[in-house]
Amino acid sequence: MCGAMYREDGQQLNEEEYIESFPLGFQFKPTDEELVQSYLMRKIKNLKLPCNRIREVDLYKFPTPQSLVEKYALIKNRESKWYFFSPRIKKYLNGDRPNRITPGGYWKLTGRDAPVCSRGQTIGKKRTLCFYEGKPTSAKKTNWIMHEFRINEQGHTTSYDDSMKLDDWVLCKVFERNIGSNATTQRDTTEVCNDANQQSLE
Amino acid sequence: MCGAMYREDGQQLNEEEYIESFPLGFQFKPTDEELVQSYLMRKIKNLKLPCNRIREVDLYKFPTPQSLVEKYALIKNRESKWYFFSPRIKKYLNGDRPNRITPGGYWKLTGRDAPVCSRGQTIGKKRTLCFYEGKPTSAKKTNWIMHEFRINEQGHTTSYDDSMKLDDWVLCKVFERNIGSNATTQRDTTEVCNDANQQSLE
Repeated sequence: MCGAMYREDGQQLNEEEYIESFPLGFQFKPTDEELVQSYLMRKIKNLKLPCNRIREVDLYKFPTPQSLVEKYALIKNRESKWYFFSPRIKKYLNGDRPNRITPGGYWKLTGRDAPVCSRGQTIGKKRTLCFYEGKPTSAKKTNWIMHEFRINEQGHTTSYDDSMKLDDWVLCKVFERNIGSNATTQRDTTEVCNDANQQSLE
Repeated sequence: MCGAMYREDGQQLNEEEYIESFPLGFQFKPTDEELVQSYLMRKIKNLKLPCNRIREVDLYKFPTPQSLVEKYALIKNRESKWYFFSPRIKKYLNGDRPNRITPGGYWKLTGRDAPVCSRGQTIGKKRTLCFYEGKPTSAKKTNWIMHEFRINEQGHTTSYDDSMKLDDWVLCKVFERNIGSNATTQRDTTEVCNDANQQSLE
């Protein structure tokens, strides 16, 4: 239960009510450091986690990101991305490349490992992937993006050498890239309002 | 008072306690649309505002952004920028250029007006400014940025023709640009952790 908050009549709020009760403008936007340090590391060590909206799934069993996210409604104006804990399996028995294939397509790496830092130390790694829908020979690139976080422990997989399991858990941030607007520049490129640039940028 | 929330013992939380009680990862990050629609428009119409952390100041009376923000502590891990309502005065009696000079420097426009959209309509405008410290002939550019929001009402200033007042209120988002890391690309450019890239990017 996220936070023991009560209304004036003594009624305890459920998780959605509690989060919806936050003032306008408060959104769930954890930093990479928070995701690795406060969530992923604790998950792997089987410790109690802070209140969170991170779901346990077997991510690569879902054909597409849409089939994954439609099970988990976001709380309007509070959340804009989905967060999941998922195990990973190996692509091949001998080796440590993760499987990226799903029943409906595959997740393709689009960047290099980036370190996740805390107090000048590397505590984890972050990779960016993009979902391609369809068979490998004719797959179409989609706007679905995943940021995959794993912890920075060497030798973490030794105990799984005889199985196909690669990790107990990685943390996956999944979202659909905003089409038609450049969310990453301070200079706005749009001059008029229309449906394509509905989402105000933060 | 932001939200009537109570602990189990019946004690009401003050504003800081209430906000600090939110789960890890929840931050005050209102969208541009929220800022204009739910805050600025209502402020101008003298209507009650949702719970917020937007301070009323006379922004151009403060010599520098530092002198402004040091009065208003941010709540750690919840807020990363300062928000202010401020009136604006004209640069010249005849005309509608705003004064951008402060006792310690000036705010300089760095981009064009961008529309703030809601449901396909323009509800306001957003401008970006950068603070330069010192006298105009020898001023040094700083890393302080302001996003200035105003509403999209023509003829709004007619009632002020005989005075130096330009607006009742604009909404200003003030922050220091993150030095040494590119917060705007999906590809992380850093490969090692050190003090310069402490802040995990969201």
